[in-house]
This record gives sequence, structure tokens and C-alpha cells, in this order.
Amino acid sequence: MSAIDHLVHANEKYVQTFPGARPLRPKLRLTVITCMDSRLDLFGALGLDIGDAHLIRNAGGIPTDDVLRSLALSQRALGTREVVIIHHTQCGMDGFDDPAFRAELAAESGQEPPWRVDGFTDLYEDTRRSVRTVRECGWIPHRDDVRGFVFDVATAALTEVT
Amino acid sequence: MSAIDHLVHANEKYVQTFPGARPLRPKLRLTVITCMDSRLDLFGALGLDIGDAHLIRNAGGIPTDDVLRSLALSQRALGTREVVIIHHTQCGMDGFDDPAFRAELAAESGQEPPWRVDGFTDLYEDTRRSVRTVRECGWIPHRDDVRGFVFDVATAALTEVT
Repeated sequence: MSAIDHLVHANEKYVQTFPGARPLRPKLRLTVITCMDSRLDLFGALGLDIGDAHLIRNAGGIPTDDVLRSLALSQRALGTREVVIIHHTQCGMDGFDDPAFRAELAAESGQEPPWRVDGFTDLYEDTRRSVRTVRECGWIPHRDDVRGFVFDVATAALTEVT
Repeated sequence: MSAIDHLVHANEKYVQTFPGARPLRPKLRLTVITCMDSRLDLFGALGLDIGDAHLIRNAGGIPTDDVLRSLALSQRALGTREVVIIHHTQCGMDGFDDPAFRAELAAESGQEPPWRVDGFTDLYEDTRRSVRTVRECGWIPHRDDVRGFVFDVATAALTEVT
């Protein structure tokens, strides 16, 4: 049985205890931006309930243009106001060499990827940079409550980065 | 107290029951691509455990270039093989007018957004299109197991789209 088939079976049990419909607009008026990393269960780690917050995730939790597009939609169309950015220890983007990665893809596929997303070497400084990127983005109407945190994947503790 | 302060308090409890460190490479060798929607608790809905799968989320669960970047990294650097794409009922991207949204942002900020991400009118057809986009992307090495599903936000039921 494939991993996907296991998920489908697990979903059949989940349906039996699902609390039912909730509104489209997030109850906490909050958006979380974080990494795709498998050790981040945001509902558990942040005490979220169904319907509470938008969750945007990519490799690194970096506010790329696509993340800013999603955040602009979250605030303008769906009423969110606060933003949390969570980076984490042992991230695959730590020390990541983007030019080398893009050159590898271009050599194999014959097509140069359009993205340029650098890795980082200082987790805390990178978190600060991500907070600044959101605070300086003119497409995002609500930028007073943008806060950055680091999640420790060994202990699950959140540390605010100021 | 802000919504973010509530999350920080909830995290203090979560730390006490966290199972501890897990490897960087996802155990199920799986990546899930889905929407930022607040009603999708993927750990619950798919029976995932800490360390199981990469979770990539944006507005719509649409495989934009940034999502393909994350997926390429997931497979090439971190060993994942299977891909699940989950779209859902009552999505904010259903009927979304991208040219109008970009024009609104350009008028307010004086800067034209670089993205072009159309909404959709047929949820199932859009799911098929997203699966095709991943299957046809030359930067993704493993494309044999790419499957699409629709999540019903009223019942939590998953339906495979073939």
C-alpha cells in the first residue's frame, strides 16, 4: 500500500469526529507563514482549532512573491490582520546554495528556473529579514502586527526574534 | 491579548508532550500541496505524525513556480517521492478575478505585482490541471505518484480526482 493510500484510510476515521463546517474567514484573523518541514504540526504547536488561521508554507518559510500574493489575498479578501513568521532549527535552507541548485536543474531539464531564493547561514538574522520583507511590502494592508519566531525541532519551543 | 500571544501560551503546553527530535528527511517520503485555508488540519485529516511529510501551502494550493521550487527541493535534497495535491470546496480562489486583484494592488501601491495566478470555476477540473502541472515539470525527478483530491470543508471527506 502506498503512503497516499494510508492517508485516505486515516481520513475515513477523521471524518467521523470532524466538528463540521466553519466560516471561510479565519476566526483569529491571523496568517502563519512557515516552512514545509515535516516536524511542524502547526495545529498542535500553536494550539490552533479548525477555522482559526491561514497557513502558508514553502521551503524555508521565506516570503517569496508567491507567499506575498497569498498573504495579500488573506488580508484583502478574507479579513486577516496579524502575521506570524516561523523559521526553525535544522532547516534544509540553512547553508543552501541556490545558484548551484538552479544550475543543476537547468543542466538536467534544459530550462533555467525563474526563481532565485537564497539559503541562509544565520537563522535569527534570516527570520528578521523575513519580517522586514513583509513589513515593507506595499501590497499588504496590515503590517503593524508582524512577528517572527524560531521553532526548535528538538523541543518544539518557540522563541520570539526581535 | 493578541492572537499571537495566545499561540505562544499554547506552545508552552505543547512543549511538555512533544515526542522529541525526528529526522530532517520525511519518513513517508511524501509531499502534500494544498491551500492555506484555515479548515485544513493536515495532521488530523490525513493521520500524519511529526516527521512524516512535507506540507506546501499557498492561496489555492496551486503549483506556482514557488511551489515547484519547494517540491524540487523536497525530492532532490530531502528524498520524497510521492505527491498529493488537495484542493477543497468553498475555496477563496473559486471565481477569483486575478487581473482585477492585480490592478487594485497596482493602483494602491504604484507597483504592478509580478504574479499571475488565475482563479478557477470548476474545482475538479482545476485539481486535474494542478496534477498535470506537476507531472509535466522537468525540475521534479519523481512524477509517477502524483495524485489529486478534493477536501470537503463541511464533512472533511477526501475524494480522489481522476
